[in-house]
Amino acid sequence: MTRRLKMIIAYDGAPFAGWQSQPHGNTIQDHLERAFERVTGTPVRVHGAGRTDAGVHALAQCAHVDVNKALAPARWMEALNALLPAAIRVLRCRYVSDDFHARLSAKGKIYRYRIWSAPVLPPFEYRRAWHIPHPLDLKILLKAAKHFVGTHDFAAFAGNRGKPERSTIRTINSVRVRQNGSCVTIEFDGDGFLYKMVRLIVGSLLKCALGIMRVEDLVARLDSGRATPPRLVAPAEGLVLVRVRY
Amino acid sequence: MTRRLKMIIAYDGAPFAGWQSQPHGNTIQDHLERAFERVTGTPVRVHGAGRTDAGVHALAQCAHVDVNKALAPARWMEALNALLPAAIRVLRCRYVSDDFHARLSAKGKIYRYRIWSAPVLPPFEYRRAWHIPHPLDLKILLKAAKHFVGTHDFAAFAGNRGKPERSTIRTINSVRVRQNGSCVTIEFDGDGFLYKMVRLIVGSLLKCALGIMRVEDLVARLDSGRATPPRLVAPAEGLVLVRVRY
Repeated sequence: MTRRLKMIIAYDGAPFAGWQSQPHGNTIQDHLERAFERVTGTPVRVHGAGRTDAGVHALAQCAHVDVNKALAPARWMEALNALLPAAIRVLRCRYVSDDFHARLSAKGKIYRYRIWSAPVLPPFEYRRAWHIPHPLDLKILLKAAKHFVGTHDFAAFAGNRGKPERSTIRTINSVRVRQNGSCVTIEFDGDGFLYKMVRLIVGSLLKCALGIMRVEDLVARLDSGRATPPRLVAPAEGLVLVRVRY
Repeated sequence: MTRRLKMIIAYDGAPFAGWQSQPHGNTIQDHLERAFERVTGTPVRVHGAGRTDAGVHALAQCAHVDVNKALAPARWMEALNALLPAAIRVLRCRYVSDDFHARLSAKGKIYRYRIWSAPVLPPFEYRRAWHIPHPLDLKILLKAAKHFVGTHDFAAFAGNRGKPERSTIRTINSVRVRQNGSCVTIEFDGDGFLYKMVRLIVGSLLKCALGIMRVEDLVARLDSGRATPPRLVAPAEGLVLVRVRY
């Protein structure tokens, strides 16, 4: 008899090769599965709400796992955190019904991208923000960002993961741009995101904010539905999965 | 002909063995001296305002160096940051008169200690705060902290660096305690600090806030002027040199 456990997990993506299991074993999923195996004595499969790439961080990734051990949720949290690297933390655990699925039940996700716009990147922002040592035109960035809100074919802003996506149509509910000192954050709330979609959108927004791409060209690219080079992919280290909505 | 350059430096102390030069070469001073030597072609000595221990961070350490190359201060900053690890950043440079000395001219320092008081330490606070998974009595902490303000013989809160200090009398102008969610910060502004003094004071404050030491005993210890064991040294990773006053 197994029970389904739902977890909320935070991680600093810098030391890991992303979420998805790999032969070398240094992914978030690998670390979680090893921790579970040490507690339960049997191999388990951890299902995440989505794969974050190498270097991408999470404030509240969600995952589920079927466990054969009837520990209280708080005990699970303690046991897992005692076995996991300090850069991966289980923040909450609870038992859910068997029809909950971390990925399939997800209604949407919130991603945040952090840009540090100043001549020098402070040591504490290293690997946590994209350092842009040139001045940004925030008004242009804001204007450009609005065009992504709504339901679009985002093929022009999707990476190639090897196999084609069933559909490249997604809905972005909101794009919020905020500035706090040298830190500019761009937050995307959407029903789902294609491979590298946020980083490709941020790359194009940055080009506009730096004056090396016109907003009209960005809109034409979005409307084209085609991945035409050259495309600027914002680095993974500035990206944070903030929350999964259910 | 040399000119004296004053620098403001920030660093994440986690990857380094402290400020002071060591044979293995992985200290902040070593990294700075190597960067200067690559720019000037000759060995130089970098003088810091104070030595921070392994793991201790700095938002604005100060240092001076006598250079034989007449670069503009902004060029120095660029050249040094291009050669330094990303966890060490020169924030400002300027030429000063030869009678300025980073350590001897310092009038005081501000240190901040960060405590994360919650069951789980978020991944982004790893190596940047002291994780205390038990509830703290902030009122007691505040009450205890006030006793350190003023001019005292801090021998009871000094570490042994091998050779005895000329004087263990120091003046603390203020101790500020703030709470922001799970983060408790204790900020010390003083004319100078003995070896491990802030970490030993924080260790004793924590003991009071956890209810395992009475404030009266802490005061008696301060008044005793003697380093009586057992003493709790707060870990280096929670300590930040905020600013050097001149």
